[in-house]
Amino acid sequence: MDPNQSGVVTAIAIHGLPEFKKGDPIADIVIQNTTLNHHDVIVVTSKIVSKVEGRIIQAPNDGFTPEEIHAIIIGESRRVLRQRGQLVITETQGGFVCANAGIDQSNMPDGAICLLPADPDRSARRIRDRIKALIGIDVAVIISDTFGRAWRRGVTDIALGSAGIGPISDLRGTLDSNGRPLVATEIAIVDEIAATAELTKPKSGAIPVVIVRGIDPSHFREGSVKDEIIRPYGEDLFR
Amino acid sequence: MDPNQSGVVTAIAIHGLPEFKKGDPIADIVIQNTTLNHHDVIVVTSKIVSKVEGRIIQAPNDGFTPEEIHAIIIGESRRVLRQRGQLVITETQGGFVCANAGIDQSNMPDGAICLLPADPDRSARRIRDRIKALIGIDVAVIISDTFGRAWRRGVTDIALGSAGIGPISDLRGTLDSNGRPLVATEIAIVDEIAATAELTKPKSGAIPVVIVRGIDPSHFREGSVKDEIIRPYGEDLFR
Repeated sequence: MDPNQSGVVTAIAIHGLPEFKKGDPIADIVIQNTTLNHHDVIVVTSKIVSKVEGRIIQAPNDGFTPEEIHAIIIGESRRVLRQRGQLVITETQGGFVCANAGIDQSNMPDGAICLLPADPDRSARRIRDRIKALIGIDVAVIISDTFGRAWRRGVTDIALGSAGIGPISDLRGTLDSNGRPLVATEIAIVDEIAATAELTKPKSGAIPVVIVRGIDPSHFREGSVKDEIIRPYGEDLFR
Repeated sequence: MDPNQSGVVTAIAIHGLPEFKKGDPIADIVIQNTTLNHHDVIVVTSKIVSKVEGRIIQAPNDGFTPEEIHAIIIGESRRVLRQRGQLVITETQGGFVCANAGIDQSNMPDGAICLLPADPDRSARRIRDRIKALIGIDVAVIISDTFGRAWRRGVTDIALGSAGIGPISDLRGTLDSNGRPLVATEIAIVDEIAATAELTKPKSGAIPVVIVRGIDPSHFREGSVKDEIIRPYGEDLFR
C-alpha cells in the first residue's frame, strides 16, 4: 500500500544540525543532514529563519530595558489588541495575532532579540525552490512558531508561512459518510503539521528542523499562509 | 535507540472499525482491531463517544427547524460570546468556546443532532481504565474534536478530554540551549496530539480512532483537559 494513502503520518526530528547564523543556507544544510523524499514536509522553526535572514536586534550595551523592548514590539505591530502587565497581544505587521509581536529572547545570545521573519511564505518558498534546484525533489516547507491561543491554556506550534502545500484543505462539496455535505470543511493542514513537528522535540527546544512524512498527496499544491490562513480583520469576530 | 527518545512520532489511523452506537464498548472494539503498546496515545473522536454515551437528540418528525437547533445550542451553553447570522460562538456548559456549542449533524443519520460528551475527561478515563483492565497495558486516551480558532481561518482538531497524559507540558524552570529560562513554557501537548491524529484521516472523516506513538515518556501522568487546558473566564483576555 502506498504509505501516503495508508493513514500513517510520521514526524522525524533532525538531530545534529549546527547553530544557524546570518547568511547560512538552510536548504543546503538540511539536505547534508538527512535524506528527503518526494512529498516530505520540512518544518523549519521561524527562529533559525530569522537568524539566517538577519532579523535580530542586538542591544547596544548590557541589554534592553523593558521600555526599549516595548518600543520594538509596537514597531513590529500595526494594532494593539490587549494589554495586561508586561504582556501585549498585538496584530503584527504581517497580520499575525500573538503575544509581544512574536519577538523572542529564548535560545538567543545575551542582549539579542529575534523578530519574526519579514515574509515567512517567501522564506518557505526559497527553501523549497533551493531544495528542488539542488536535488530535484519536490518537498513542501512550513515555517513554524509557537503561539498562545484564546480560551485555552498552553501554546502550540502553528505555521507562519508555507510553500508547496495547501494551507487549507478545502472540502467544500465533499460528502460525509452518510452522504451529507461536510460542515467543518476547511482544515488548517499546515497548522496541524506544525503541531505534529513540535511533538518530536526535546524539552530544551533545540531541534530547528523536522520532517513530516505521509501527508495526503492531495494537499500538495501552491498556496500561502498569508493568503489563506490569516483571517482578514473585517471577517474576524474577536478583534 | 528507544523510539520514545529518538524524536520520531507516528500516527496510525485504525481502519475498518464498525459504526458505533449507544452502549458500544469503545475500548473493547479498539483492542479487537489493533495491537497497542505501552505509552500509546489513543485519540478518539468525540462523535463516537457521544454516540455510545447517548448524547444524541433525535428530531420528532422530519428534522429540526433552525429555531429548534438554536434552542439546543443555547441549552448546551452558559454564555453567548458572539453571533453572526446562523453562527453562534458560545461557551459550553463544560467551558469550551466554540461554534454552535459543538453540536453537529455531519456523519449522523437524518434528523439527529450530536451533542458534545457531557464530561470528556471522564470518557477518556473510562476507555483508559477499561484497556488497562482488559490487556494490562497503560495507554493514554484523548477525546478529540474539530474547532475553529480566533484570527486564523480553518479548523484544527483539539482535545476535549484526556486521561493518562499531562495536557500541558510544564517547562517552568527549564533552560534553553543558552541556559536562559524558557519563555513559552507550557505546551498544550494533548492539542498537538489531536492535530497529529487528524492528519491521518481521509477527507470523508470516517476514521474515529487513531493511535499516536512515540510521545516523550515524561508526558505520561494524570491530568485533565478541564483542569489544565480550559482557561478560566477571569484569566481570559478575549471574553
